[in-house]
Amino acid sequence: MTVEFQVQGVGVSELAERYGTPLFVYDGAVLRDRFHGLRDRLHPAMEIFYSLKANPNISVCALLHSFGARAEVSSLVELTTALRAGVPPEQVIFLGPGKSRQELAACLDTGIHAVVCESLPEVALVDELARERGVRAPVALRVNPRFAVKRSGLVMGGKPRQFGIDEEELFARTDLVQRFPDVDLMGVQVYMGTRILSEDVIVENTTRILDLAERLSAALNLDLRMVDVGGGLGVAYFDGERDLDAKVLTDGLNPVIEDFTARHPGIRLIMELGRYLTADAGTYVMGVRYTKTSMGERFAVADGGTHHHMAAVGIGSFVKRNFPMAVLNRLDEPPTEEWNVTGPLCTPGDTIGRKVPLPPVRPGDLIGVHRSGAYGPTASPGLFLSHGYPAEVLVHEGRCHLVRERDRPDDLLLRQRLYDPTAHDAADVSH
Amino acid sequence: MTVEFQVQGVGVSELAERYGTPLFVYDGAVLRDRFHGLRDRLHPAMEIFYSLKANPNISVCALLHSFGARAEVSSLVELTTALRAGVPPEQVIFLGPGKSRQELAACLDTGIHAVVCESLPEVALVDELARERGVRAPVALRVNPRFAVKRSGLVMGGKPRQFGIDEEELFARTDLVQRFPDVDLMGVQVYMGTRILSEDVIVENTTRILDLAERLSAALNLDLRMVDVGGGLGVAYFDGERDLDAKVLTDGLNPVIEDFTARHPGIRLIMELGRYLTADAGTYVMGVRYTKTSMGERFAVADGGTHHHMAAVGIGSFVKRNFPMAVLNRLDEPPTEEWNVTGPLCTPGDTIGRKVPLPPVRPGDLIGVHRSGAYGPTASPGLFLSHGYPAEVLVHEGRCHLVRERDRPDDLLLRQRLYDPTAHDAADVSH
Repeated sequence: MTVEFQVQGVGVSELAERYGTPLFVYDGAVLRDRFHGLRDRLHPAMEIFYSLKANPNISVCALLHSFGARAEVSSLVELTTALRAGVPPEQVIFLGPGKSRQELAACLDTGIHAVVCESLPEVALVDELARERGVRAPVALRVNPRFAVKRSGLVMGGKPRQFGIDEEELFARTDLVQRFPDVDLMGVQVYMGTRILSEDVIVENTTRILDLAERLSAALNLDLRMVDVGGGLGVAYFDGERDLDAKVLTDGLNPVIEDFTARHPGIRLIMELGRYLTADAGTYVMGVRYTKTSMGERFAVADGGTHHHMAAVGIGSFVKRNFPMAVLNRLDEPPTEEWNVTGPLCTPGDTIGRKVPLPPVRPGDLIGVHRSGAYGPTASPGLFLSHGYPAEVLVHEGRCHLVRERDRPDDLLLRQRLYDPTAHDAADVSH
Repeated sequence: MTVEFQVQGVGVSELAERYGTPLFVYDGAVLRDRFHGLRDRLHPAMEIFYSLKANPNISVCALLHSFGARAEVSSLVELTTALRAGVPPEQVIFLGPGKSRQELAACLDTGIHAVVCESLPEVALVDELARERGVRAPVALRVNPRFAVKRSGLVMGGKPRQFGIDEEELFARTDLVQRFPDVDLMGVQVYMGTRILSEDVIVENTTRILDLAERLSAALNLDLRMVDVGGGLGVAYFDGERDLDAKVLTDGLNPVIEDFTARHPGIRLIMELGRYLTADAGTYVMGVRYTKTSMGERFAVADGGTHHHMAAVGIGSFVKRNFPMAVLNRLDEPPTEEWNVTGPLCTPGDTIGRKVPLPPVRPGDLIGVHRSGAYGPTASPGLFLSHGYPAEVLVHEGRCHLVRERDRPDDLLLRQRLYDPTAHDAADVSH
């Protein structure tokens, strides 16, 4: 009997049949378990904000919010998504090094909890927008700390960066509260790095960030009511990596949080989580179109590829490592061969997996890339070769929900125009 | 007096004012000069096919076609684009390692010149589709040659690849013509590599490809009426690189072509050009939102970034090198400082240029990335942080044409759906 990959009892063949391939499938139970696995152990004073950048699907955001997640957004459309997903404005914060005037105005007009400002000119702009509106704008200062964190996938602090304001600079600005009368400087945010897989490092980060926030608010005389300790919690993608242990992590974090909140009762503590919540819940399902052999190597040419899942091809790493992969419709067959799994694009870079141990692959097989719920379509060049972005399906409580239709051919040409050589543009058509 | 960047007399400030930033601007005169610079020197038997993958904008395709370019496409939407741009089907060829049944059917139904098949199972599928339609399908065989080419940015031949059929395998298939009675095996295609900046290498490639096509057609008894020698002609992006010299190139190529066509009168020879035709014609224009200093380094935080122009951040190269960049609204000011030019994304990877020599940068300045007409938006993750894809403007004969509107916020949510926890999907909604 053939064993196939199932999501809450729904077989992958049925999903492929109903929705076509390539396809991203999200398991709502895994999203729930990831969220509650941490939430139920974490000190109640630490709130979990979902970073939409990891997966901006409105239904993923809504489901996580139904479990208790708030929202961290970084663009006007992410803000709109969070609000439409049902997250109340007071549970939303907005980050990003290059916010537009329009985005900052939307932050004030929707009444979100805080704008995390990344430079003093940005604080000045928020001050101006607040004055125009006759409101006081809640602002957290993003600090680029003097210290860096080791053992992080991508170091965000302790180096020259476009993010935040250098710690040294901030400590010297003791007139900050006076300089921006229409800004309520109520918080501090620090983000240390990404893909951290050591519980100790996260505990150490958090300790240092809380300490920095305390010293900074004292030095600048801030009315500190929020500290955002960032996130960067990783998931294990590759051989030799180990997932974080939520119990070990919270055993380390909770006393630090308890200690801090004892000194700052009622303060709002925020942790931003994106990849950690969603990665494990997603599977990218591709159909095999052709199989072939080239110079002794086997190739499975699939209907999905880099344009939907660039992370899986190892962009950003010098050494290409494979995500966990399987032939989903024949899970019981042992991996006796090595296969290069490639996509439909005209570049050798469109290789989803190199020499992946798989059973013999046949056209029509469904190859899955696991741990694909984060930085999938959103971080991939979906217009390449004009193939467009794929469908996404959420399975929750045994029900299937199409939460994103695949792009239709005309979607890709929607905003394009064939020029008329004899005509000028009408004035200002694009605004 | 301030000197600013102009495109056919239209100042960059006016373009930014009319269309907003970030913005891609294409100069039709440069497209014309690139095309004619080669076309007017190249042996008339060698046809130039524009590879839409480099820039799939319908107006770029239409303009190049107005000069005489044909079209090489790799997806259903690219095929639609080329036809809507006015390219006749008999001037279109279709390539790609993972073509769908629907794509192959469209090739036959629109009557394009040739399907370039990349595996024998694909030839078999074309044979089946042709039989269903009562037509004979024109097919060129893509060969993965035994030899590799040196000094290419990305080697495509002579290695195990998802592309084409190994040379050794093909020579052994002497029954090919008989095996596929509804396929007209009329051509051979070989693609050696990308970003080649040596005229000698291109001449050598072409010579070897034509020789291989000749030997193969003799061995398999093909009725050879087309040879596609691929492309891969590079442009100089970085310090130390030199652009190809069209005269040197054609002085080398033309005798080879003359020699071949003397033996094969009336044969159709095809060269695929994408980057070579479009790269130099495009400028990515970003507005500076904030300037800041972090740990002694200057940062200009712009409204554009990786999500529109991933090539410029050096993805795919181990060593990050800067594209040519300038402050477009003050071209006359000397570059006296070093600036990191970054975008609005929440990742340190969103760095368009590192330590770029520029004059002092101020908010509101327009920073341009030159040579950005190829592999810009189409090869970039435009959905990242849900910012969407930018506007594109073609300037030709002094007229401005908005050839792609920027994505509107609702475009990004167009295919998303908020799940209803109490409802199942209706059956097969996505097909």
